Amino acid sequence: MLSTALFTDLYELTMAQVYLEKGKVDRAVFSLFVRELPKNRNFLVSCGLELLLEVLERFQFTDEQLFYLKSLGIFKDWFLDYLKEYRFRSDLYAIPEGKIFFQNEPLLQLEGSLPDVQVLETITMNLMHYNVLVASKCARCYMASGGRALVDFGLRRAHGLDAGLYSARACYIAGFAGTSNLQAGMTYGLPVFGTMAHSFVMVFEEEEEAFRAFSEVFPDRTILLIDTYDTLKGAQKAIKLMKECVKVVGVRIDSGDLGELSREVRELFDREGFTHVKIVVSGGLSEEDIQGLISSGAPIDTFGVGTKVLTSSDAPYLDMAYKLVEYGGEPKFKLSPGKKTFPYKRQVFRFYDGGKMAWDEVVRYREGGMVELICKDGRPLKTLPSIKEIRELFMKEMESLPTALRSLSKVDDYNVIVKND
Amino acid sequence: MLSTALFTDLYELTMAQVYLEKGKVDRAVFSLFVRELPKNRNFLVSCGLELLLEVLERFQFTDEQLFYLKSLGIFKDWFLDYLKEYRFRSDLYAIPEGKIFFQNEPLLQLEGSLPDVQVLETITMNLMHYNVLVASKCARCYMASGGRALVDFGLRRAHGLDAGLYSARACYIAGFAGTSNLQAGMTYGLPVFGTMAHSFVMVFEEEEEAFRAFSEVFPDRTILLIDTYDTLKGAQKAIKLMKECVKVVGVRIDSGDLGELSREVRELFDREGFTHVKIVVSGGLSEEDIQGLISSGAPIDTFGVGTKVLTSSDAPYLDMAYKLVEYGGEPKFKLSPGKKTFPYKRQVFRFYDGGKMAWDEVVRYREGGMVELICKDGRPLKTLPSIKEIRELFMKEMESLPTALRSLSKVDDYNVIVKND
Repeated sequence: MLSTALFTDLYELTMAQVYLEKGKVDRAVFSLFVRELPKNRNFLVSCGLELLLEVLERFQFTDEQLFYLKSLGIFKDWFLDYLKEYRFRSDLYAIPEGKIFFQNEPLLQLEGSLPDVQVLETITMNLMHYNVLVASKCARCYMASGGRALVDFGLRRAHGLDAGLYSARACYIAGFAGTSNLQAGMTYGLPVFGTMAHSFVMVFEEEEEAFRAFSEVFPDRTILLIDTYDTLKGAQKAIKLMKECVKVVGVRIDSGDLGELSREVRELFDREGFTHVKIVVSGGLSEEDIQGLISSGAPIDTFGVGTKVLTSSDAPYLDMAYKLVEYGGEPKFKLSPGKKTFPYKRQVFRFYDGGKMAWDEVVRYREGGMVELICKDGRPLKTLPSIKEIRELFMKEMESLPTALRSLSKVDDYNVIVKND
Repeated sequence: MLSTALFTDLYELTMAQVYLEKGKVDRAVFSLFVRELPKNRNFLVSCGLELLLEVLERFQFTDEQLFYLKSLGIFKDWFLDYLKEYRFRSDLYAIPEGKIFFQNEPLLQLEGSLPDVQVLETITMNLMHYNVLVASKCARCYMASGGRALVDFGLRRAHGLDAGLYSARACYIAGFAGTSNLQAGMTYGLPVFGTMAHSFVMVFEEEEEAFRAFSEVFPDRTILLIDTYDTLKGAQKAIKLMKECVKVVGVRIDSGDLGELSREVRELFDREGFTHVKIVVSGGLSEEDIQGLISSGAPIDTFGVGTKVLTSSDAPYLDMAYKLVEYGGEPKFKLSPGKKTFPYKRQVFRFYDGGKMAWDEVVRYREGGMVELICKDGRPLKTLPSIKEIRELFMKEMESLPTALRSLSKVDDYNVIVKND
């Protein structure tokens, strides 16, 4: 088991030592929420809870880590003993994965002894921030796709290997067909997809030879990359092969005017009766590009997306905060300019109108709303939903999203009423 | 040893199986380069090589992974045997970490049997892309800081835990004083820093009580966060403590008008003779913010940066490619629109004028330029430089950067001449 306990900011540990030394060990509640949605985001998608629980389970200090902390010369031995015994043992409340949520709603709340929940701040934010960020971006692609297939091709430009893994999972939750990322395929049981690279085509003397070689080795899964030299000539070569009874599942176009080229290629194929051959496009696509291509009538079956989605390039971070809202049963709030917080542990009730989300109310916690108690004293209360169940929940959520919020552009904020009761 | 071998796109493995089956196993060279610099980037910083070597060493398929691949039903047994025996055994050429480089320059080149180097595409891009991206962003902060201290506070909003780890290392290489990230402190031997959070101040009945508690537990490293309620009143409380001989190293301001507040706080402290107390600011700072604050004369000693730097928010990805440039001794290049590549393994020679970089020439590989042979048949030829040495190299590079390129705004591209010889 790889320890995650040192993925924390130094100040979490210095503060915890003060808390313990000064007897500030009453129950505290920290709330993780997004203050304001970024530009172009009309909603966010809850994502990452299952991953967070795994990370919290591994939040245990090893001897080597404790030796390092001791070497810093700032921690007391009794505090290092506290860390040595540290296990995740707090209560965790969350809005379940796949749910849509908005500004000022408590995505996650941790309740436990003050030092116990303080030290989890950094790692909790790191995990939840990226997962929500990327799932919310993927949801925009899903909205734009109008039912065409989406595949995650982005591992190479995600910010690190974790980000690649998490984002493949988030993509699938948000309605993608699958991923090219094999580690994600294995870890989360996701469908995996792939075509071929330009380098593959270039290694052979002739493009046609490359196509032929691939189809011989993988007769049932040949998707030909046709834009290495000339897309339309590439399409003609695909036709030539198919006339020789080579099975071609699809072709991929990765450059040029994707709308125009897909139309021309579709026409070439259809004219010869190869109406079943799918057209896959890729190449730095954003959700706006996808929407643009579809609304222009481009006959594209599958969009491969990567860079812009996995980096959430138009909004690469959220204004997410992990704030103390309650200590020893007393409300806590902060008054710094522009950083108002709401006190107390919270629940969210959602109200509907004709099957569509109408407004949310954020009130003091009681059972029965969107926020669920997930862990009690560190122990999960029930089995978490499977990734397929989360995906289904997301799909349902999308159906109840008001039409106005389905825009890729920013509309007025959804009405979230934070009540002081 | 945690295997990294499945952090790859499916198509790398399908292509490799075709290469092996069709006898395409001659020596190939792949080149990793950036086509065009993003907006606001006048140069890039080489970063990540040491991390890549670690990842390549762990690029070994486990039995569990091979079992998963077999379960996909698309790979042949002899190919899975090839993967089982796979070890990194290629030649690796690179521009050393800490060096400044530009568009169309071969940051990294891998040379080996075609399938051997093809399967490394995804993981190599993932590692190098983020490290270069974040180091180049950090270098902009370093330029803007005018000698003031910079500290990485960004782990919580980096895209995953490994991004947090890599970026702390990149920050240090690019001249930062250190990081709040303890895992990075331990892994790379970086100086670690921390202050206190708003939650800490709020837990105590009175702000002053919080300040006092921290200073009692950490008498030599007290940096007081003074903006929880009212920054100037917070500063007055710091003064009161100091008059009682409590040692205060510095104060942090995390909200409001940082320029104005830092001036007022400085004046309060100086008037009372506390000229040694440092002022730390933080709160979503970009390099432009830092430059703006400094040029307005704000008396700030240390900038804590995070979100915008670790996500490289104004340019969250690079147009980086991993392209086949040579196979079996023959040049390879691609003609797709807007994606021109240059054939052959390459070297970069840099020319200087009065100690400043004047232009670069990218020519066919021969020894003696910026590109070094790092690994031969997978084995490193020498010990890599320490992180301190890389940092010193970066500092030297910055001194030879032409004045025009030191702007935070985009100027004309640096002159990179790609020669066909």
